[in-house]
Amino acid sequence: MTLIDGKAIAQKTYAESKAAIANLKARGVTPGLAVVLVGDDPASRAYVRSKDKMCHELGMHSVKHELAADTAQADLIALVKQLNADPAIHGILVQSPPPPHIDERAIIETIDPRKDVDGFHPISVAKLALGDADGFVPCTPLGCQRLLIESGIEAAGANVVVLGRSMIVGKPLALLLMNKGKGGDATVTIAHSRTRNLAEVCRRADILIAAIGRPEFVKADFVKDGAVVIDVGINRVDDLNTPKGYKIVGDVAFTEVAPKCRAITPVPGGVGPMTIAMLMANTIASAQRFAAGA
Amino acid sequence: MTLIDGKAIAQKTYAESKAAIANLKARGVTPGLAVVLVGDDPASRAYVRSKDKMCHELGMHSVKHELAADTAQADLIALVKQLNADPAIHGILVQSPPPPHIDERAIIETIDPRKDVDGFHPISVAKLALGDADGFVPCTPLGCQRLLIESGIEAAGANVVVLGRSMIVGKPLALLLMNKGKGGDATVTIAHSRTRNLAEVCRRADILIAAIGRPEFVKADFVKDGAVVIDVGINRVDDLNTPKGYKIVGDVAFTEVAPKCRAITPVPGGVGPMTIAMLMANTIASAQRFAAGA
Repeated sequence: MTLIDGKAIAQKTYAESKAAIANLKARGVTPGLAVVLVGDDPASRAYVRSKDKMCHELGMHSVKHELAADTAQADLIALVKQLNADPAIHGILVQSPPPPHIDERAIIETIDPRKDVDGFHPISVAKLALGDADGFVPCTPLGCQRLLIESGIEAAGANVVVLGRSMIVGKPLALLLMNKGKGGDATVTIAHSRTRNLAEVCRRADILIAAIGRPEFVKADFVKDGAVVIDVGINRVDDLNTPKGYKIVGDVAFTEVAPKCRAITPVPGGVGPMTIAMLMANTIASAQRFAAGA
Repeated sequence: MTLIDGKAIAQKTYAESKAAIANLKARGVTPGLAVVLVGDDPASRAYVRSKDKMCHELGMHSVKHELAADTAQADLIALVKQLNADPAIHGILVQSPPPPHIDERAIIETIDPRKDVDGFHPISVAKLALGDADGFVPCTPLGCQRLLIESGIEAAGANVVVLGRSMIVGKPLALLLMNKGKGGDATVTIAHSRTRNLAEVCRRADILIAAIGRPEFVKADFVKDGAVVIDVGINRVDDLNTPKGYKIVGDVAFTEVAPKCRAITPVPGGVGPMTIAMLMANTIASAQRFAAGA
């Protein structure tokens, strides 16, 4: 059984990112990312902080806008438009979820599709569905695909089961893996809460991707011997044996599943580190396209 | 074995369409469809003619633009913009495929998404991917779903295999059937030319949908006993025993497959009649939304 080391693979992509950034800087361009946070949700704050920190580590330009929880939708839209027009910014991300009075779709649709490094603008979604490689793919699905590629796991022709049909992970990942080309050409099944005989469907998978958001939901009987398991879940469960009183577990019951696998991602340290890495890669790709005059 | 009668089901939808049109007319609105054809491909001409004819039969407003094969892209875009601005037009369809000098994506993206009754604008694609019911779904996938619903075949929880990953049929149909709600909630697998053990994958299907564009490709060993088979294929094959010298066959080897099925669509007379029926339904839905001030 191989443990897929997301931290190490993320580091490899950062090395590539640094080279690409050096190249851009030599041409007078510094890739710039703007992250907008509305409200003070602690988890969202932590995500925004780590994105900002990673930009600094890589030598990218980073702008962080932290707005009050009662910010008006019109003001948020005005800020996004200002960032659209700012030539120093190549990527714009509005941290999800915004407070309930904000229409998140309207915000996302305001982002210039050329700066939509989060990959949720309709134009990005459509390009992914069309298999058009010049759109942005959401960071977590892109990170999952990259883990497979870097681990030498061939998606082409493989039976992939994606457990979960969210627009954040399940559907874009299914589209990504079924599209033609490198890291694609898989035979993809999307399973979900309404799937009959769920364990049996999952057992058919050569590559099983769990993105259902339920702690340790995938048990040993969901997994074929020799399968590859990618665990997208990040669930907080009570654990009084830890100083914080909780621990983070994935959607996979790791201890019982891992021995059956050809390869598996741990949680934490699997998919998690890839999400920010792919956000940086998307922002750099955007800067490259702008520099090329696209 | 039940033969799914696409003509009869299309007629049922036309009866509904007529009632909806009468309702709109009572409010002073006549649903209007504009179809644009560039060039003189005989098959495209025939499609455009039948769309126009159906509009007239239903009492809808129909506009047909037949442009020369060497029409400039800019002129085609100008026409689409004119139709976007025309309040008598609720649906715009540019017959596919246009001549090679035309960038089809640019034309589609020019169509006002509110009039995109063909369902291929990025906004429509994204809404389908997001499971947002107020977008337009492409007519052939929508027709396939409608055939299942009208035949009392439950998609929810069923194992559906969609054979073919085109953006015209395979992918939108997969999204439609996996989305939440009526006629959805299926467990969908998309199989294609790169799928290993294709017959075995297809044999898992409770509902098998063939949209691969290869005449009589699906044989008896692709089909589980008691499965439902929807044949989207329309293939012209030589047949010297017919006056025309050819016949139309589907993607399914009907004679050997039909006896194994719980239900199956014939070709012709299955999915085919539903495509135009759903185009009419989409145009009427658009007129209703415009009338409601959307």
